[in-house]
Amino acid sequence: MNLLLINPNTTQAMTDALGQAARAVAAPGTVVTAVQPSFGPASIEGFFDEAVAAAGVAEQMRHAPAHDAVVIACFGDPGLDAAREASTGPVLGVAEAAFHAASLVSTGFSVVTTMTRTCVIAEHLLHKYGFERRCRGVHGTDIPVLALEDGGLACLPQIEAAAREALARDRSGAIVLGCAGMAGLCHTLQARLGVPVIDGVSAAVKLAEGLVGLGLGSSKQGDYAPPLPKRYAGWAAPLGW
Amino acid sequence: MNLLLINPNTTQAMTDALGQAARAVAAPGTVVTAVQPSFGPASIEGFFDEAVAAAGVAEQMRHAPAHDAVVIACFGDPGLDAAREASTGPVLGVAEAAFHAASLVSTGFSVVTTMTRTCVIAEHLLHKYGFERRCRGVHGTDIPVLALEDGGLACLPQIEAAAREALARDRSGAIVLGCAGMAGLCHTLQARLGVPVIDGVSAAVKLAEGLVGLGLGSSKQGDYAPPLPKRYAGWAAPLGW
Amino acid sequence: MNLLLINPNTTQAMTDALGQAARAVAAPGTVVTAVQPSFGPASIEGFFDEAVAAAGVAEQMRHAPAHDAVVIACFGDPGLDAAREASTGPVLGVAEAAFHAASLVSTGFSVVTTMTRTCVIAEHLLHKYGFERRCRGVHGTDIPVLALEDGGLACLPQIEAAAREALARDRSGAIVLGCAGMAGLCHTLQARLGVPVIDGVSAAVKLAEGLVGLGLGSSKQGDYAPPLPKRYAGWAAPLGW
Amino acid sequence: MNLLLINPNTTQAMTDALGQAARAVAAPGTVVTAVQPSFGPASIEGFFDEAVAAAGVAEQMRHAPAHDAVVIACFGDPGLDAAREASTGPVLGVAEAAFHAASLVSTGFSVVTTMTRTCVIAEHLLHKYGFERRCRGVHGTDIPVLALEDGGLACLPQIEAAAREALARDRSGAIVLGCAGMAGLCHTLQARLGVPVIDGVSAAVKLAEGLVGLGLGSSKQGDYAPPLPKRYAGWAAPLGW
Amino acid sequence: MNLLLINPNTTQAMTDALGQAARAVAAPGTVVTAVQPSFGPASIEGFFDEAVAAAGVAEQMRHAPAHDAVVIACFGDPGLDAAREASTGPVLGVAEAAFHAASLVSTGFSVVTTMTRTCVIAEHLLHKYGFERRCRGVHGTDIPVLALEDGGLACLPQIEAAAREALARDRSGAIVLGCAGMAGLCHTLQARLGVPVIDGVSAAVKLAEGLVGLGLGSSKQGDYAPPLPKRYAGWAAPLGW
Amino acid sequence: MNLLLINPNTTQAMTDALGQAARAVAAPGTVVTAVQPSFGPASIEGFFDEAVAAAGVAEQMRHAPAHDAVVIACFGDPGLDAAREASTGPVLGVAEAAFHAASLVSTGFSVVTTMTRTCVIAEHLLHKYGFERRCRGVHGTDIPVLALEDGGLACLPQIEAAAREALARDRSGAIVLGCAGMAGLCHTLQARLGVPVIDGVSAAVKLAEGLVGLGLGSSKQGDYAPPLPKRYAGWAAPLGW
Repeated sequence: MNLLLINPNTTQAMTDALGQAARAVAAPGTVVTAVQPSFGPASIEGFFDEAVAAAGVAEQMRHAPAHDAVVIACFGDPGLDAAREASTGPVLGVAEAAFHAASLVSTGFSVVTTMTRTCVIAEHLLHKYGFERRCRGVHGTDIPVLALEDGGLACLPQIEAAAREALARDRSGAIVLGCAGMAGLCHTLQARLGVPVIDGVSAAVKLAEGLVGLGLGSSKQGDYAPPLPKRYAGWAAPLGW
Repeated sequence: MNLLLINPNTTQAMTDALGQAARAVAAPGTVVTAVQPSFGPASIEGFFDEAVAAAGVAEQMRHAPAHDAVVIACFGDPGLDAAREASTGPVLGVAEAAFHAASLVSTGFSVVTTMTRTCVIAEHLLHKYGFERRCRGVHGTDIPVLALEDGGLACLPQIEAAAREALARDRSGAIVLGCAGMAGLCHTLQARLGVPVIDGVSAAVKLAEGLVGLGLGSSKQGDYAPPLPKRYAGWAAPLGW
Repeated sequence: MNLLLINPNTTQAMTDALGQAARAVAAPGTVVTAVQPSFGPASIEGFFDEAVAAAGVAEQMRHAPAHDAVVIACFGDPGLDAAREASTGPVLGVAEAAFHAASLVSTGFSVVTTMTRTCVIAEHLLHKYGFERRCRGVHGTDIPVLALEDGGLACLPQIEAAAREALARDRSGAIVLGCAGMAGLCHTLQARLGVPVIDGVSAAVKLAEGLVGLGLGSSKQGDYAPPLPKRYAGWAAPLGW
Repeated sequence: MNLLLINPNTTQAMTDALGQAARAVAAPGTVVTAVQPSFGPASIEGFFDEAVAAAGVAEQMRHAPAHDAVVIACFGDPGLDAAREASTGPVLGVAEAAFHAASLVSTGFSVVTTMTRTCVIAEHLLHKYGFERRCRGVHGTDIPVLALEDGGLACLPQIEAAAREALARDRSGAIVLGCAGMAGLCHTLQARLGVPVIDGVSAAVKLAEGLVGLGLGSSKQGDYAPPLPKRYAGWAAPLGW
Repeated sequence: MNLLLINPNTTQAMTDALGQAARAVAAPGTVVTAVQPSFGPASIEGFFDEAVAAAGVAEQMRHAPAHDAVVIACFGDPGLDAAREASTGPVLGVAEAAFHAASLVSTGFSVVTTMTRTCVIAEHLLHKYGFERRCRGVHGTDIPVLALEDGGLACLPQIEAAAREALARDRSGAIVLGCAGMAGLCHTLQARLGVPVIDGVSAAVKLAEGLVGLGLGSSKQGDYAPPLPKRYAGWAAPLGW
Repeated sequence: MNLLLINPNTTQAMTDALGQAARAVAAPGTVVTAVQPSFGPASIEGFFDEAVAAAGVAEQMRHAPAHDAVVIACFGDPGLDAAREASTGPVLGVAEAAFHAASLVSTGFSVVTTMTRTCVIAEHLLHKYGFERRCRGVHGTDIPVLALEDGGLACLPQIEAAAREALARDRSGAIVLGCAGMAGLCHTLQARLGVPVIDGVSAAVKLAEGLVGLGLGSSKQGDYAPPLPKRYAGWAAPLGW
């Protein structure tokens, strides 16, 4: 199957790293294509960044090569619903995927994320998806997203410490890594912490494969029906339907 | 005070009408400037349209002239949180404003909106804002947004019928008009239905004036702190902070 | 417009102070009349006080001079629904008004109130109105209400300290002052804390003006329909409809 | 044990009937004293009536003869929290008691009440107490409360029909009678409908006996601590603590 | 009336103690018969124990002697819904009973239980029953259930300390003892703590008596209708209907 | 990988059919072993059946051959938490799996199940897992489970009709089949209805493969820690840890 991975920010190194992380867990027959918008922020650390990045996801969906499934590889899941409208295959956000996976292996999980100011974005998503009771805490580390660009090894001790404190304080049984850039630290952290540690990118890839295997795609009836035909102005003209 | 009204779609006639609707209720000292993005959909009738329109709101916020408050004049409140990050004054979405006003004059209200497919967008907002118990029903009429461009008088009977049915079936005491384009029908409907009928654009203008009068603006601590400085790529380069 | 402000307790100095606080933010054309019940507790610091005070609000509503809007100036919003039944104009509670305003300028707020034992009253209101997710904490200071009678300057340090701790612990972006008697401290606190600080009395006045400007009043269909005609016994005989 | 039953309205015939209903289910050693306020509405059919009636409950609590438990015999549970502050014994509202009993014998129940306009009062209580998921529907019959004064036999067919429809439409397994005046119809309805039918007055009496048997009374720590000493003005002067 | 008390574990000493605890609060006419399954765990300290114990409750219900009401005497309420299907009388779980009683005497309560790992079981029950807002905290003491077999006096100081901390930290007004084995400590703790302390076994007995007194039993319409006739295999063959 | 599929009922033909359904979607390397308890009901159509079946799941977990993941193939997810305690690999319930899959391809789904009386079981699960907002309706068809034993083709028209009505009335975009016995009808229904139709058995198999691929298993810290060592009595003696 062809899997389109969209990195919503415009940092090529991050796109490459995300593509690699996806390929590392993909099944043998899964071909991963990693893309990024032609415009937008170098990283996503707040609502403003996210609003522009979501339009970048829409742009990539509009011109996406043929694919069987899509993964949106930023923990805020920007443009997720828009991408589902634009696709007949399944579309997964990495926060969403991580929350689903964590719910299946624990009675309660904690999220360890980057900037404290983005915690509220995670909380909104948890509520929107229905995981507000399963998630027992969202914790910021105030590590800038781009500090994770090279794999994030230097941040490992800080993240591990935050995870240990979260497990104890929240009485939770699993950790969700709240930034796509932390993917590379997942296995090391799981080994050290002794509980399931979930990276959303990997989780989204496996869920996407599973849904394709089930013959399931985004519902085209009702809320995710294809966008209505209309004129788009300015740089967005080619996005019109 | 200076009030910036952003029409998130790119239909100039709609922008003009929204500006007029805002001026019709504005206090004597309130100067309304109505703008629209330089790009994006002619109307917003789904998640894809909305994702691009939210970036348009971000664009307008970035280059907005000096203002004391902002109103985002589309019932999906696209880009609302982003605009709050980008502003020190209050920023109001029209759906949000309408829900607040309706909650203050009834124990339960119904929403009458345009396309049925957008009902879920309204439901998401109701839940995000905490009005899921106060709102007793969201009803689609499947009137296209642009059919309301000329004021919507032709659609009045259909909207009135939908409102009457909603009041009876939902046991509610007020009607929220679920599209900024219905603003012009508000008073007629209120007179005919005998219950409060709330147009979000008017509500947002008055709430914005009230907040400015209270000396309140978007919190700059925590979640709405100004966007972090970073590089934006492509057409969005000028949006970087 | 004529604004009727009802202080639900029977302390004249408090009524005068509340009237002044209301006039301080009222628009030029707004005439504020401040009244208090002919009976009931000198202050409201629990459920028993509140039950009697709510009847006092009902009494004042029954014989109220002509008015365009009503504000009930006690943070427990006693008699709010009763007053709406008895009025065709909008009726605002100060807790309700403060919660609405705080929700429009922050993603999460904290309440700093007087007696710890009244926190549960605030929590009930937050839940009733739908702000249980927007409010991130309710904090008692155990300052007696009447200690605020003279403006509360002596209590400022204690309130400021409680607010600072609330902001940090709750990860919130705004403070709601949980007692009508704290109105005079609002601006000073906002200046010191650097976040929006909301006084319910001011917020209620501006919301009331806004609703009147929108032509909106308490719904007379359904739950807020006028009281049914019936006999009232004892001192309450003149309250019958 | 001594059980104080407070009828919050001022219709003596209703007080007598409620006392009788209570005695009919009371254990041999339970002495029921039925009282009513010295003031207030002849019946309670809305928020305004209720606000004055709650003060009447407070009045009766303040001067109540020695008692072991209290029942507030109106389906809106007016003054319940105030009465708990004023008592060391358990205090039961009849709506609350009925909801508890219904929850113990069914997975979901329906409420059949009098005026449709009071449905929202029942819904507020259901939410406050936590039964919003257990209750599957609140249904008004628009029978005036005083039509039930003589036992309500004439209203039986209407109530039975409403109950049957509620059971079918709500997929519920029990009926709560939403008015203290329907007490006398409970057994007949249960026999006819073949499901548990709960009258709140009876339920409150048995719950009160049970709590007294357990040595449990209203918590005097925190929210239900005795009212603070203070001056009460006007007719309420003797209510001060 | 005949009350069947089922101890879901297979420790005879515990069954005897529970029977005694029940008789200690039972009304004069109540005859308590205490039974235990013929199979299953010696104590219940997790989901696996509980799953087998619930089948034990089903076994006892299937062959139960004639009875008017049933109490399931383990704080996880194992098999409660199954037992209701199998009975026309009321069936009470001790956790459920304790939560109901605590809700009637406080605005918020805390649970003090045994193993921390069972806290999530209590949380599931609180949510299922609708007490998630009334309960302000669930606290594990990590006392093994069987350490309470002899009455638990040795554990009193540890439980008292946990209760005191819970009252303070949770701002709650009552304590629910989260293990049927703590029944004997209830009165001592209530005396020492000065707040209502609720033992579920006692509470369930009094609620059961109350429901029988009201003529209420498990609804036989809908969800609790008798089990459908069918073949059961293996040791469970005699359980078939 | 080795996948253990547990059919919680004791009908061998159902076990065989479920095994086949699982193998039909399993990845090439997945070996499915289908087992059933040595005791218990021939089908599960209520709480009583379910309580005994959950113990059957526990029995099978205790003596399960080496496996990498477990699927519990009954729509009530009996014994799910118990099985997670007893396993280091992931354990999936088919209702849970179906709800997760449906949430990823629609903004709202409907459940079409067998006996109306089991709807409440589905509703409890939806609430426990957090899907109460995503699921827009649970609909019974009153088809007996064993009528589906031969594949259920005869029931197809009835199920299709119920699904169509559910989609329209609930405004939902996907259908979850609420019985493991409906697995064989999934593809036909999806083709006819034009929306995603989710069979829980298939969904559970693919989710299990995905979690194993991610290196995730049931958390052994906290709530799913292995059962504590203890004596089990009677037929259950070999289940003790």
